Amino acid sequence: MKNRQVVIAELPKGALTPEHFRLEETEMPVPGDGEVLLKTILMSIDAANRAWMQGATYREPVLAGDAMHTYAVSEVVESKSDRFRPGDIVAAESRWADYVVRPAKTLVKQPDVRPLSHLHSAYGIAGKTAFHGLIGVGRPLPGETVVVSAAAGSVGMFVGQIAKAIGCRAVGIAGGADKCDWVVSELGFDACVDYRDPSFFKALKKAAPDGIDVYFDNVGGKVLETVLFQMNEKGRIACCGAVSQYDSAAPAGPRNVPGMVVVKRLRMEGFIVMDFAQNDAAAVKALKTWTDSGQVKVVEDIVEGLENAPAALIGLLAGENRGKRMVRVAPDPA
Amino acid sequence: MKNRQVVIAELPKGALTPEHFRLEETEMPVPGDGEVLLKTILMSIDAANRAWMQGATYREPVLAGDAMHTYAVSEVVESKSDRFRPGDIVAAESRWADYVVRPAKTLVKQPDVRPLSHLHSAYGIAGKTAFHGLIGVGRPLPGETVVVSAAAGSVGMFVGQIAKAIGCRAVGIAGGADKCDWVVSELGFDACVDYRDPSFFKALKKAAPDGIDVYFDNVGGKVLETVLFQMNEKGRIACCGAVSQYDSAAPAGPRNVPGMVVVKRLRMEGFIVMDFAQNDAAAVKALKTWTDSGQVKVVEDIVEGLENAPAALIGLLAGENRGKRMVRVAPDPA
Repeated sequence: MKNRQVVIAELPKGALTPEHFRLEETEMPVPGDGEVLLKTILMSIDAANRAWMQGATYREPVLAGDAMHTYAVSEVVESKSDRFRPGDIVAAESRWADYVVRPAKTLVKQPDVRPLSHLHSAYGIAGKTAFHGLIGVGRPLPGETVVVSAAAGSVGMFVGQIAKAIGCRAVGIAGGADKCDWVVSELGFDACVDYRDPSFFKALKKAAPDGIDVYFDNVGGKVLETVLFQMNEKGRIACCGAVSQYDSAAPAGPRNVPGMVVVKRLRMEGFIVMDFAQNDAAAVKALKTWTDSGQVKVVEDIVEGLENAPAALIGLLAGENRGKRMVRVAPDPA
Repeated sequence: MKNRQVVIAELPKGALTPEHFRLEETEMPVPGDGEVLLKTILMSIDAANRAWMQGATYREPVLAGDAMHTYAVSEVVESKSDRFRPGDIVAAESRWADYVVRPAKTLVKQPDVRPLSHLHSAYGIAGKTAFHGLIGVGRPLPGETVVVSAAAGSVGMFVGQIAKAIGCRAVGIAGGADKCDWVVSELGFDACVDYRDPSFFKALKKAAPDGIDVYFDNVGGKVLETVLFQMNEKGRIACCGAVSQYDSAAPAGPRNVPGMVVVKRLRMEGFIVMDFAQNDAAAVKALKTWTDSGQVKVVEDIVEGLENAPAALIGLLAGENRGKRMVRVAPDPA
């Protein structure tokens, strides 16, 4: 029995293309003591994947020749550890591959949530990132205005819906009129503004007439620059990502930091979801409450097939997804 | 009896020069009901003065034709308010002038501290800004490394000394080897690095070998960019000013915000001293304790004469001062 994996053929210097990846057949990996053999079910596709190719960040970098790194929901098929048994569903730092071997101690057993895709969206990194970034870093109060970029994306989608659920005005920023319409009509944001529109600044001002109290920043760059001008005093910016900068050889930030940060007494604070792991249970409980009540809709965008992972990531960076994108490698077990 | 004032002849578009100012003789102002006539004793000279000329910030802008705005320590000479009596010493939002009339309710009576110049330095805006920005925003713990730019300046001078007093490693950044030597030998910082040195990055790394936990940013721009690369995870940046950007027609910020803020989970937070007014008494008490013990030295740079205020500000922007710069308009009363 053979294994398949998608390997980085070459690290991108500019925009990511299919030529940066290669599908390989390899031998089945064999677990040693304390390790388990995992079958990949669903791989999370994230803009962060692209950032990992830029060098060391908060985690090890991805290098040419590596099977691409990913967060995955996987099934234990063979265990050389007494912590896991075949059939267990786990969250893993994994690889773009049908099967991987991982140390048991790096895995986290998952509850039996169906469909398993919800472990990547509402109850996974997307939902938790939205919750922790908005509640823990942005700290909005009812009546305040929350703006989120990449509003149709996996995290932004939850940010705006959570903001609504706690009584804020929720304004999205997204690319294109169709996507903006969808964010309002399907997700229930109060407004959504197209950053590609030449009158973006004015449209944002109209959508956030009382100014912006909390900005959940997924994109950085010029959108952040525009938002900075419309932040209220004592505003908070939860810095979650800078996707506008990842797929570029020459990252460029906004031009008015720190001037605007001083003048308006802003707080810009970077975070990653793992920083708030101690509050994960509270996050999942809140998210489940809201999804059960219908206040938060779960939208997923599942691409079929390991071999389509490169295209899924490239498309994500181009903004083609609506909701949480993932790649299905194998069906949910019965 | 005549009054003198220094007026903005023209708002600067690029670097500030003496031609942007004009010394005028005017009639003595006369206080109305609820107002007092103030005699200016000492005017604080701050980089922020230049920022006010760039337009509305956290306060009203300074416009062409206005007498230049300033914080001043002044003596009440005539009062039409029962809150003040002739001879009272007050802190005022004032003007570059021998005499001004101000509403009584905008004035704050000062304790009888001698010399009065200490009301601008250790116990005034400089000392309080350093204290609140470092303690309230930066929140360093003993053993952490604190870096401050404009280290020989009015605020930076106190930041490093306070950092030492609470058990941190204090590293300054200043312009020129002489100034850096002075920061170490006179103020007792552990190290001070010259940002004009071509090997600034390496020198900073050597001065802060364990990385930077708290950066007190007075300058923005390229210095901030360099520091960002050397911040430790969960580092805090107290954004106090961006003096490198004030005296320029084309402000430019660092290039790696928000990317670095996300990856390192940094907190950048802007503040102005008035935000922490509720803690002013604690700040002054702490500063007095440290100055009495000799742990914090008070260095003042007093320029004589109202007519020399423009040169004092222009020189400050060029970094010629060591310690808190002010202009003496009249002697301390007996």
